[in-house]
Amino acid sequence: MKCAIVAVGTELLFGHTVNTDAVFLSQQLNLMGIDVLYHHTVGDNPGRLEEVLKLSLNDCDLVITTGGTGPTQDDLTKEVICDVMGDVLVEDAHSLERIVKHFERRNRPMSENNLKQAMMPSRAVVFDNHNGTAPGFVLESEGKIVICLPGPPNELNPMFEESVKPWLMERSAEALYYRTIRTFGIGESMLETKLLPLIDGQTDPTLATYAKMGEATLRIASKRPTMEEARSAVEEMIERVYEYVGDYIYSTEDESLPQVVGNKLIEKGLTMSTAESCTGGMIAAAMTDISGISAVFERGIVTYSNGAKMDELGVSSETLEQFGAVSPQTAEEMVRGLKAKTGSRVCVSVTGIAGPGGGTPEKPVGLIYVGVMLDDRMEVFEIRTNNNKRQWNRNYTMLYALDKVNRFIDQMVE
Amino acid sequence: MKCAIVAVGTELLFGHTVNTDAVFLSQQLNLMGIDVLYHHTVGDNPGRLEEVLKLSLNDCDLVITTGGTGPTQDDLTKEVICDVMGDVLVEDAHSLERIVKHFERRNRPMSENNLKQAMMPSRAVVFDNHNGTAPGFVLESEGKIVICLPGPPNELNPMFEESVKPWLMERSAEALYYRTIRTFGIGESMLETKLLPLIDGQTDPTLATYAKMGEATLRIASKRPTMEEARSAVEEMIERVYEYVGDYIYSTEDESLPQVVGNKLIEKGLTMSTAESCTGGMIAAAMTDISGISAVFERGIVTYSNGAKMDELGVSSETLEQFGAVSPQTAEEMVRGLKAKTGSRVCVSVTGIAGPGGGTPEKPVGLIYVGVMLDDRMEVFEIRTNNNKRQWNRNYTMLYALDKVNRFIDQMVE
Repeated sequence: MKCAIVAVGTELLFGHTVNTDAVFLSQQLNLMGIDVLYHHTVGDNPGRLEEVLKLSLNDCDLVITTGGTGPTQDDLTKEVICDVMGDVLVEDAHSLERIVKHFERRNRPMSENNLKQAMMPSRAVVFDNHNGTAPGFVLESEGKIVICLPGPPNELNPMFEESVKPWLMERSAEALYYRTIRTFGIGESMLETKLLPLIDGQTDPTLATYAKMGEATLRIASKRPTMEEARSAVEEMIERVYEYVGDYIYSTEDESLPQVVGNKLIEKGLTMSTAESCTGGMIAAAMTDISGISAVFERGIVTYSNGAKMDELGVSSETLEQFGAVSPQTAEEMVRGLKAKTGSRVCVSVTGIAGPGGGTPEKPVGLIYVGVMLDDRMEVFEIRTNNNKRQWNRNYTMLYALDKVNRFIDQMVE
Repeated sequence: MKCAIVAVGTELLFGHTVNTDAVFLSQQLNLMGIDVLYHHTVGDNPGRLEEVLKLSLNDCDLVITTGGTGPTQDDLTKEVICDVMGDVLVEDAHSLERIVKHFERRNRPMSENNLKQAMMPSRAVVFDNHNGTAPGFVLESEGKIVICLPGPPNELNPMFEESVKPWLMERSAEALYYRTIRTFGIGESMLETKLLPLIDGQTDPTLATYAKMGEATLRIASKRPTMEEARSAVEEMIERVYEYVGDYIYSTEDESLPQVVGNKLIEKGLTMSTAESCTGGMIAAAMTDISGISAVFERGIVTYSNGAKMDELGVSSETLEQFGAVSPQTAEEMVRGLKAKTGSRVCVSVTGIAGPGGGTPEKPVGLIYVGVMLDDRMEVFEIRTNNNKRQWNRNYTMLYALDKVNRFIDQMVE
C-alpha cells in the first residue's frame, strides 16, 4: 500500500511548529509495511489543499491528513476531502453527543462553532477522539482511502493506535523489518563504496547509507509476506555487512556511542573518569546523559589551564614546558594522573587545539591527543582533523575517544 | 514572492529524521517577506521529485530543494532539476578544486563518486559549501527560480546566510532588517501576553515569539524602502519591548547564554570554574565551546559520586548524610569548596535529580540546587522543573545557572 501524509496548517509554513505528526505517522506506517511516498504541507487554503489531495490520490492508495479539523472558519480539511471524494458533510449524532458531553464534563460553555466538529462525511467510518473535540474518520471511494486526523499529537497519536492501526492492519498483506547500523571511523561515501557488492542489484533487503556529524549510518530494510521472513532476511544481511565493514560497526540497534559505552560500563560494572582539556566536559556530559550512569561514572575533570593540569592531575611543569600542553606526553601524564587519583578502571584524557584560533604550523588547529587507560593498558592516540571548526573538532574528538574506549572494553573485558 | 520547499530523502519518509531544514527555511523566508505555500517531501525517486517540482513551479516563483546532493547513486536532485528547468550538468572546475582540497586537507582519500558533487547545471550560479563537499546553486528559467541546497543543517544553514539570503535580498525591492531577542525565565505564551499591546494591530515592525527548549525568543522585523528606515524602526521597537519585558532579555543579538556569559568573562577578565553533579559537565562544555575562553575558564569538576564531592570540593560527610547530596547545603559547600580550591572569581555548583529515575516524594525528579559565587557574594537557588525528562532538566539547569551568573556580573562588575 502506498501512502501520502498531508499536513494542513499555516503555522507549519511559518516554521513555528515542527511537523512531528509526519514523523510519528511515517514511523508507524513503515513498520506496518506501508510505503510513505510523500509528505505535503499546505496552509489553511482550500484550493491548494484540493490540488495536493488530488496529486496524492493519483499516486497513492491511502492519504492521511493531519490538522485543519478545529472549530474555526479556517478549518476546512473535511470540506475539501468531501469535494475530492464525492461526499457531503452531515451531522453525526454520536459525535455531537460526545462533543456536548466533553464540554459538560469540563463545566465549560460550548461555542456555536464546536457544532461544526460533529459534521462528518455521510459515508465515513468515524474515529472517536478521547483527548479532544475533533473526531477523525476514514472515507473510501473507488479503491482510494482518505483518513482524516486531528493535528495535536496528544489527540492524533492515541487515535492512530486505537482506531487507525487496527483498521489498516486488517488490510495489509506485507510486513516490514529494518535495522539501523551505526559506524565510526569511515565516511559515508567510503562506506557505500565498500558495500557496493551488497548494494548493487539488491532489491530486498535494501541498504542505504546516511551521513551524520562525524559518523556514517547504514539502514537495512526488508519487506516480506511475514515479519519472521523480513527479520531473518535483514539479520542475514547484517552478517554479510559485518564481513565487509565489521571493524567500523559499533551498534546494530541504532544506539549512539555514548549509549553503547555507557551501557557496557553499567553492565560490566566498569568505573570511569575523564580528564578533558579541549573537549571541555563534553565527554563527561555525554556519558552522564545516560540514565543510570551514576553507578559507574565517578569523576570528570576539565583542566583547561596548565595550572589545573598540574594541580588536578599531577602533570609535571617540565613536561608542559618541554613538550607543551598539546602533546602525547601531556595526554599520557593526564590519563595516568587521573587513574592515580580516581582509581577508575576506565580513564580518558584529551588535550588538543579545537580552534578556530590557537594553531601554529607545528601544532595546527585540529591536532588532538587522546589518552585511554583500561586497568594497566595505556595508549595515546593522535588525531589530525585538518578542520578548523571548533564544534566539529570537539564533537569528533568525543566520538573518537569513546570509540577507543569501546574497543578497549571489547578486547579486554568479558 | 511565493515559495515551495521540497525536501528530498527517503530517511524523512521513514520518520527517522525530522525535517528541520523546512522549519529553518520557513522562518527565514517569512522574515524576508517571502510567502511559503508548500512543504513537500519525496524520497530518492526521480519521477516523484519531478512531479512535485512541476507542481511547485506551477504555483510558485521560487522552489528551494534540500538534500539529495550527496555523492551516492541515489542522490539525484541536481539531475531532476536540470530536466525540469531545461539544463544539463557540466563539471564545475571551481567546485571540483574545492572538493579535492577538502579531502587533501583531511588527508583522506577521495572516492570516485565525490566527483559527482562537482557537476553543476551549466547556467547555475554556484554557492560554495564551507562545511561539506556538496555545493549549492541557483538556476533561473522563464521567471522561475530553483535553489538547490545540501540537506545537513550544519551545511545548509550557513550557506543560506552567506549566499542564498544576499542573493534573494538583491531581488527584493524593499530592505528587510530584523533582530532576534533572547529571553530566559519567561514562557512563550506569557511573553506574548505581556507584549500584546505592542503586537496587536502592529503591521511593521512585526513581532513574533518562538519557543526554544526552556527559552522564549522574540523576532522583530521591519521591511521599509531603505535599510536605515527598517533598522531604526526595529531599534525603536526594541526600546519599547524593554519597557515590557526587559528583565528577561539577555541578548538582542541572537546570542546564546553561554556566548553572552563567555564574552563578558573574556572582556572583563573574570576567571570561572564549575562543579557539576547532575549536569555532568554540560556547563563546562557549553562555556568551552566559546572560542578564546581558555584565557578565563580555569577548571571544571564533575563530581558525580559522593566520594568525588568530598575529595574534590571538601563537602563534609555530615552534610551529605544529614541533608543529602541534593540539598542547598551541599550546593553551598560545593561552590565554596570550588572557590577555595581554584580562586576563580566566578564559581558555579549544581546538584540535583535529572531523572527519569531517582526521585522520591520528598525530593522529586527535577529538584535541583544551583550555587553561584562572584567574589564574596554567594547564593543558592532552588529549581523545581516538575518535569521528568532528563535531557530537558539538564539543559534547563545549564541555562538557569548561566542566567544567574549573567545577572551577578551585570549587578557587580563594571
